Amino acid sequence: MDTAQVFGALNIIGLFVFAVSGALTALRNDMDIFGVAMIAFVTGVGGGTIRDVLLGSFPVWWIAAPSAVFICLAGAVAATLAQPLIASRLKTLIWADAMGLSVFAVLGAQAALAAEAPAVIAIFMGAVTATFGGVVRDVLLNEPPLILKQDIYATAALIGAGVYVGLMALGLGISPSAVVAALVTFAIRAVAIIFNIPSPKFARPRKTEL
Amino acid sequence: MDTAQVFGALNIIGLFVFAVSGALTALRNDMDIFGVAMIAFVTGVGGGTIRDVLLGSFPVWWIAAPSAVFICLAGAVAATLAQPLIASRLKTLIWADAMGLSVFAVLGAQAALAAEAPAVIAIFMGAVTATFGGVVRDVLLNEPPLILKQDIYATAALIGAGVYVGLMALGLGISPSAVVAALVTFAIRAVAIIFNIPSPKFARPRKTEL
Amino acid sequence: MDTAQVFGALNIIGLFVFAVSGALTALRNDMDIFGVAMIAFVTGVGGGTIRDVLLGSFPVWWIAAPSAVFICLAGAVAATLAQPLIASRLKTLIWADAMGLSVFAVLGAQAALAAEAPAVIAIFMGAVTATFGGVVRDVLLNEPPLILKQDIYATAALIGAGVYVGLMALGLGISPSAVVAALVTFAIRAVAIIFNIPSPKFARPRKTEL
Repeated sequence: MDTAQVFGALNIIGLFVFAVSGALTALRNDMDIFGVAMIAFVTGVGGGTIRDVLLGSFPVWWIAAPSAVFICLAGAVAATLAQPLIASRLKTLIWADAMGLSVFAVLGAQAALAAEAPAVIAIFMGAVTATFGGVVRDVLLNEPPLILKQDIYATAALIGAGVYVGLMALGLGISPSAVVAALVTFAIRAVAIIFNIPSPKFARPRKTEL
Repeated sequence: MDTAQVFGALNIIGLFVFAVSGALTALRNDMDIFGVAMIAFVTGVGGGTIRDVLLGSFPVWWIAAPSAVFICLAGAVAATLAQPLIASRLKTLIWADAMGLSVFAVLGAQAALAAEAPAVIAIFMGAVTATFGGVVRDVLLNEPPLILKQDIYATAALIGAGVYVGLMALGLGISPSAVVAALVTFAIRAVAIIFNIPSPKFARPRKTEL
Repeated sequence: MDTAQVFGALNIIGLFVFAVSGALTALRNDMDIFGVAMIAFVTGVGGGTIRDVLLGSFPVWWIAAPSAVFICLAGAVAATLAQPLIASRLKTLIWADAMGLSVFAVLGAQAALAAEAPAVIAIFMGAVTATFGGVVRDVLLNEPPLILKQDIYATAALIGAGVYVGLMALGLGISPSAVVAALVTFAIRAVAIIFNIPSPKFARPRKTEL
């Protein structure tokens, strides 16, 4: 596969799994059919949209690529049909979200590098692309943000985007850098989810003291 | 009336009623005078602003049209003066919101078509323009989003935008298409509000099971 | 100091104190190290980013100025190290927020004037720049917005931006206008915080009546 194909495939995966996560959250909130479709779409394209806006790349990418709408609709339909079959919607949501996070961290960093942003901005933009679809989903649905409740979340995206930017600086090609960085991100999230690892934190302030 | 006048009038109506809905929500939250004015403005212009940003139409429309500020201020003043007179702020809010939804669904779809977006994107952009002013209002004020609590809400906007795009494709003129589509949207919302009709949903997941 | 230096210094102060306020809020929410850094950055650059997007000034300013990332990181580190030493995180947060509000109200109005926006839009843009970093912080962290809980908040920013636009119209130079307007904004906030002054409000609706 050439580079465009690798990125195209990663983008489809990211859109689909984030749409699934958006649809599952909307279904939990008893939204109607069109509402579920809309939240699925916003969750799928949200991170990349904010990235495009910040980089000044207009119109944002899905305006000219309505296939994104249909991929997200497919995610919404899949989530709706699958929900009676899956034991735990919350667990499925967390894993779908982890896959989207991994893919979009790389795609966001790549888009920023392509727009000639400095390395530190590219890493940050990877994290924004990866986390803000989920943030928009949680904000629209008034849920406590998953970015807060899950340990090593934005952290995984920042590390993954950093790995991508680092491998590119070392001269590894785009496609292998992307695949390695996405796998690293996913592995970090998977370990954190499975072993429920708390992130490194400073002394915890007690809320009552504030 | 020619086309520009029809759209100008619809825009003024939409701005005013969304500003009223924003001001009523801000008043419920005990905000001060300037806060009420600011929320009224953000609610009024929010949906169209997000639409302009997504389409890459800059600067966003109200930067060069400060009359939007005064229309929204008029809505804030009207809401403030009227509130002791009206029996139920919540009911008034829901109806004002329905009018704004109907008007902005059409204006959003029209702006997207004018920017040569594909039909499916134009329909989605109608729904975004119609619903995101209210979403921004609810998010800023930490209220449970009306988009969630009200049945057939985003759905009505999607159908209205779809009717507009469909009538335009059939060759009906811009003005009659706009008026018909706005009336269809409002009729759907009105029936849903009056008869409290639930939207079509799939099997409801129980929260406790998650 | 010439004008560019005055504005550069004000911008660094605003970034730093808003980053501190973002980091303190993130620490209260038990976020991990990278999460704290990310929230500090988003709070620091959020208001100016929304201003740039609305004005159509792309790419947004910090893409080409990664020093903003390091200033915000310094704010996050300072907040983290200082938190065991300070008696009340909430009080520190409110004062840091007041400084950021004062500085960004002026910078926002200035940026809008530089983009040739009308005076009323420049005043509004000052308030947006000043308040939306904090709004994004509170929305991301699911906190009740400080813009709501604090009296004379958006009001102080609007007055400060108005003073700046007024002094500029009177022909006072950019630097003295900026310093005077920022001090006026801070003084208004300080009086409101110290004396806990309620804002002028209309008859309070009772929530139960709605």
